[in-house]
Amino acid sequence: MPDKAAKVRLCVPDDLSPGTVVSPSREQAHYLFNVMRLAPGDSLLLFNGRDGEWRAEVAEATRKGGALACVERTREQTRPHDLLLLFAPVKKARTDFIVEKACELGCAALRPVFTRRTNAERLRTDRLRAHMIEAAEQCGFLTIPELQPPERLDRVLDAWDPSRRLMFCDERRNAPPAAKALAGLAPPPGAPIDPWAVLIGPEGGFDETEAARLRAAPQVKAVSLGPRVLRADTAAVAALTVWQTVLGDWSGIEGTMG
Amino acid sequence: MPDKAAKVRLCVPDDLSPGTVVSPSREQAHYLFNVMRLAPGDSLLLFNGRDGEWRAEVAEATRKGGALACVERTREQTRPHDLLLLFAPVKKARTDFIVEKACELGCAALRPVFTRRTNAERLRTDRLRAHMIEAAEQCGFLTIPELQPPERLDRVLDAWDPSRRLMFCDERRNAPPAAKALAGLAPPPGAPIDPWAVLIGPEGGFDETEAARLRAAPQVKAVSLGPRVLRADTAAVAALTVWQTVLGDWSGIEGTMG
Repeated sequence: MPDKAAKVRLCVPDDLSPGTVVSPSREQAHYLFNVMRLAPGDSLLLFNGRDGEWRAEVAEATRKGGALACVERTREQTRPHDLLLLFAPVKKARTDFIVEKACELGCAALRPVFTRRTNAERLRTDRLRAHMIEAAEQCGFLTIPELQPPERLDRVLDAWDPSRRLMFCDERRNAPPAAKALAGLAPPPGAPIDPWAVLIGPEGGFDETEAARLRAAPQVKAVSLGPRVLRADTAAVAALTVWQTVLGDWSGIEGTMG
Repeated sequence: MPDKAAKVRLCVPDDLSPGTVVSPSREQAHYLFNVMRLAPGDSLLLFNGRDGEWRAEVAEATRKGGALACVERTREQTRPHDLLLLFAPVKKARTDFIVEKACELGCAALRPVFTRRTNAERLRTDRLRAHMIEAAEQCGFLTIPELQPPERLDRVLDAWDPSRRLMFCDERRNAPPAAKALAGLAPPPGAPIDPWAVLIGPEGGFDETEAARLRAAPQVKAVSLGPRVLRADTAAVAALTVWQTVLGDWSGIEGTMG
């Protein structure tokens, strides 16, 4: 049964090496010392997205800060698969959810895209980034995914990197099941997996012009996520789950953890 | 592009047959006539979980009710696979989410289970049922999943039907990947799929005693959902996605829609 120390995991900006002393932010100090009640000598985990994960010990606990001393590396840094989630912003709570889940499901990058039917509420990217950090801390991810700037879908497609494949969750009934379609695009054993993106549309789905452009693009694989109409947030989790299951770190092919 | 009528789909208690006239509830009338602005002659879809899906027309629109006349059956009734989601209640918003997603992902039944680490907030089953109805209306499901009474996990396991398999999402790293484990339990082509359940624990995971009991039970398949620690709501969506992908109606084996 995990003790409280093993549950506390913080993302910090500092470089991490043996003996490094990290000063938690005021908010982190509140969390560590008031909420989780860590005391001097207690252990916690630190990561920064570059130097792996470290066990650190509380050297000093104060109201506004304190000192956390790096003791030993507990996990080497790894890099997640180059998996990009393109998502049309939806209502605030559901957008927060998509961003949280994308971290738990191991995306390397996220990008909000505005489609023709996207009801563009104001997008607080600082808030999304805070959700991403919290999710990475909580799920054991060694990476904070990159949050790319919001852009119109048309422009994203205009500038598409031809080496990146795109999984397009198509509501047409004749699209092939997602898992089978992805399995058909798996590289030969031992070969690296292509960069991929997953595209999740807004609640109203894609405009017919957008859908036609997507279906016709050579890098795009149109796939079906089953017979029911999924909400955007469900579709995001389901599509990323299928991707990780077939091509990514849920496949059992390798044991790495991003 | 779907017109507004195609978007309106209501679950009603009435039996549905040609010429049946259904009186919407006051809340439904508000939704139909004020929110969606349907007028006499407009079409909508009705279902009741028994008689398939019907196109109906607004015969009369009033502030507190009105009349909806069944015109023609648009889809035959089907039954979803016998897939039960057992879930430990978590915080309110995330429990609501689990229930909504279980409908979108085609569960036949849901049951809240109290585990040793479940923080049992009061569970409003009427509220959960309302969420399930709304989710079924929205996603095109022909079934309102059964909401079984909350029970302690130990008692649920004591009374387990030996013909029902249980997918247990195990946080131990050596559990086999979920998709591979389920594929190994798929019936021969053409044979019916066993009754199944998926068990999702509370945020703190299962107690070691519970986990040991689960791993030892003959009907239980312990599986891994990848290398990161998923929140309970993410795990529910991911586990049900893998199940539908490998054994259910996302597998492409059959075209039925529950």
